[in-house]
Amino acid sequence: MATQGQFITCKAAVAWEANKPLVIEDVQVAPPQAGEVRVKILFTALCHTDAYTWSGKDPEGLFPCILGHEAAGIVESVGEGVTEVQPGDHVIPCYQAECRECKSCKSGKTNLCGKVRAATGVGIMMNDRKTRFSIKGKPIYHFMGTSTFSQYTVVHDVSVAKIDPTAPLEKVCLLGCGVPTGLGAVWNTAKVEAGSIVAIFGLGTIGLAVAEGAKAAGASRIIGIDIDRKKFDRAKDFGVTEFVNPKEHDKPIQQLLMDLTDGGVDYSFECIGNVSVMRAALECCHKGWGTSVIVGVAASGQEISTRPFQLVTGRVWKGTAFGGFKSRSQVPLLVDKYLKEEIKIDEYITHRRTLAEMNEAFDLLHEGSCLRCVLDMHVQG
Amino acid sequence: MATQGQFITCKAAVAWEANKPLVIEDVQVAPPQAGEVRVKILFTALCHTDAYTWSGKDPEGLFPCILGHEAAGIVESVGEGVTEVQPGDHVIPCYQAECRECKSCKSGKTNLCGKVRAATGVGIMMNDRKTRFSIKGKPIYHFMGTSTFSQYTVVHDVSVAKIDPTAPLEKVCLLGCGVPTGLGAVWNTAKVEAGSIVAIFGLGTIGLAVAEGAKAAGASRIIGIDIDRKKFDRAKDFGVTEFVNPKEHDKPIQQLLMDLTDGGVDYSFECIGNVSVMRAALECCHKGWGTSVIVGVAASGQEISTRPFQLVTGRVWKGTAFGGFKSRSQVPLLVDKYLKEEIKIDEYITHRRTLAEMNEAFDLLHEGSCLRCVLDMHVQG
Ligand SMILES: NC(=O)c1ccc[n+]([C@@H]2O[C@H](COP(=O)([O-])OP(=O)(O)OC[C@H]3O[C@@H](n4cnc5c(N)ncnc54)[C@H](O)[C@@H]3O)[C@@H](O)[C@H]2O)c1
Ligand SMILES: NC(=O)c1ccc[n+]([C@@H]2O[C@H](COP(=O)([O-])OP(=O)(O)OC[C@H]3O[C@@H](n4cnc5c(N)ncnc54)[C@H](O)[C@@H]3O)[C@@H](O)[C@H]2O)c1
Ligand SMILES: [Zn+2]
Ligand SMILES: [Zn+2]
Ligand SMILES: [Zn+2]
Ligand SMILES: [Zn+2]
Repeated sequence: MATQGQFITCKAAVAWEANKPLVIEDVQVAPPQAGEVRVKILFTALCHTDAYTWSGKDPEGLFPCILGHEAAGIVESVGEGVTEVQPGDHVIPCYQAECRECKSCKSGKTNLCGKVRAATGVGIMMNDRKTRFSIKGKPIYHFMGTSTFSQYTVVHDVSVAKIDPTAPLEKVCLLGCGVPTGLGAVWNTAKVEAGSIVAIFGLGTIGLAVAEGAKAAGASRIIGIDIDRKKFDRAKDFGVTEFVNPKEHDKPIQQLLMDLTDGGVDYSFECIGNVSVMRAALECCHKGWGTSVIVGVAASGQEISTRPFQLVTGRVWKGTAFGGFKSRSQVPLLVDKYLKEEIKIDEYITHRRTLAEMNEAFDLLHEGSCLRCVLDMHVQG
Repeated sequence: MATQGQFITCKAAVAWEANKPLVIEDVQVAPPQAGEVRVKILFTALCHTDAYTWSGKDPEGLFPCILGHEAAGIVESVGEGVTEVQPGDHVIPCYQAECRECKSCKSGKTNLCGKVRAATGVGIMMNDRKTRFSIKGKPIYHFMGTSTFSQYTVVHDVSVAKIDPTAPLEKVCLLGCGVPTGLGAVWNTAKVEAGSIVAIFGLGTIGLAVAEGAKAAGASRIIGIDIDRKKFDRAKDFGVTEFVNPKEHDKPIQQLLMDLTDGGVDYSFECIGNVSVMRAALECCHKGWGTSVIVGVAASGQEISTRPFQLVTGRVWKGTAFGGFKSRSQVPLLVDKYLKEEIKIDEYITHRRTLAEMNEAFDLLHEGSCLRCVLDMHVQG
């Protein structure tokens, strides 16, 4: 490629300061160093984690930065020693790396690879502990090791999944975060069995993907809980069989669910990020075996609590990050599942915009009707 | 038997009021009704749950009552329809019933049988919702469905495990609560694998049984944590390989343990009943897979808390009751294991007293040197 080894100047949405509109800027993207991959991002979606860091509430948020972590693109060039992808490969950047060498990867018990975290956690690349983005020489931080709100980005080679080149990138970009998180919470973290009764708190993208996963796992009842009635109709298509709006009841929601289910649900999933709902989600579980999985991300500093008796009497409290999927190994398999029509993606995409409409897309996130808004990164709009 | 169908008058330690010394009384024990078994208690030990209810801190405690739930005896007579035990059988009363018919028993996922709970929870028998104990016509409540601080007691047939008659009752009485709780927390609840690093908070009977279970499971390191240094020497015999006294360090204990173990332990067990230690026990677990089991029983109303991020990053919070053992099915197997010298019992018995010395035995419970004190129920002393 003509650009290989060169700086690329391209458009990116830059968050200069917390809570200020993103600005579309000309950004210089340095060539990939050893162990790095430069990716042309074609499509990116927005997720609440982007909005959370943008809002300034994330104490670890660094500015200026380039947000974005749910995307798909094509490898432009690779740095020294990179063997698993090459220019032209279709890829999904993965905020959760998979090195296959660290203690966590080798444990076989978790997807939480620790290899590049010390760098991605502070917005830089591991090789020289610097950023690859700059504007007129001023460094711009990376975000989650992905920074997909740029037409080109640089990621660690352990943070990129090579996928089937026939997959439509404008769809499978969603496999970078939300959809796998929900499916994996059910399949990997909770391991829901056929016949189970499942409660899902929050029917956004994550909650709907949980519903889809639970339906595939053969759950007998899938109870959707949301304070926004509008969510219910759509949720049926994802497998939700019953709906509860906590606002329409005086009883605490955990009591209500226990009454509805002869003592409690087998599995519950918190897909909101609200610590009191996390408590309710645990306490609505059946004594002896009910398992609650926290998927939502609470604001920094907030704590969950319950009486220990809830656990002594057999409930289990867990959580999940990226649904427990090993990113480089399993995201390509999810792409294959989509191609075989075994999992949905199209149905989660409610809006499409362009990079230039980034701020409008952020506003959409807070609208009840929006699940995922996918941005076309290279169309003028 | 001459006593069959008759009231039996015998000695029992009666708790007339919270926090007042128990009184050895002549108690009338009614014959067993349908589905009930009258047991001659030969030996009983004391456990902290007895002391907790006696103290008045248990809001569900009812007085006057006969405490006690860690015992062994011989069936004196059985009520109508009782088929699984008969007079002369050697038995261990089980505070956790096992009916093999209820939703919980049939689930195969828990030992928390619900069959007789509505009665045992309020100190009575299910058949007529009355008590079988009285003193001069005044009813005395049952406790935990066992009430073993009496020379004769009446229990539900689902709450009694028939054991090998060659087993020494003055030893195997301990299999009624503490020792199985610790062993089962490791084997059934946590399912510790060979090579694991284990942390045990509190080195009383329960903590030592956890150590014994972890050693048998092949744990590579067993770290004992206690604020009483005296506990350490004895703990070595139960498998503890390293000791930490939180009082001797400035760092929070969870940080200290993470440093000692390259990122955290694989399994931790809280065997104290202290909610801040429960939090530390969770937070000292390794990211991605560390599992913490709450065994200790906290005072009523107290709550555990942590940041949800602890769970989202892969730690699991569980609890255990009676170590997850199905009482009627598995207590006899534990007796067999003791007879085959596969598990310890003798080493937990640090004191022996008689029924008459009940109050002294209660005092011993709070002494650092005492693990279990076994009372001979029929010797004059
Ligand atoms: N663990 C992970 O790896 C991971 C990955 C991606 C996203 N997340 C988190 O998952 C959460 C959900 O993401 P999303 O994109 O689906 O969000 P979303 O905002 O689209 O959906 C949240 C839903 O919860 C509902 N809700 C809000 N408060 C409620 C309450 N008190 N009771 C019931 N319902 C309530 C809302 O009406 C909405 O439908 C977020 O916290 C996000 O940060 C976690
Ligand atoms: N879940 C169940 O089924 C079950 C069954 C039986 C007993 N229990 C409970 O298990 C707990 C332990 O029982 P036990 O008989 O071993 O009690 P114990 O009092 O003999 O042992 C507790 C130990 O904890 C130590 N300790 C106290 N505070 C500490 C702290 N802050 N940090 C570290 N160590 C501390 C004490 O020095 C003591 O050695 C009790 O709460 C009991 O009620 C639960
Ligand atoms: Zn996301
Ligand atoms: Zn790794
Ligand atoms: Zn006990
Ligand atoms: Zn039962």
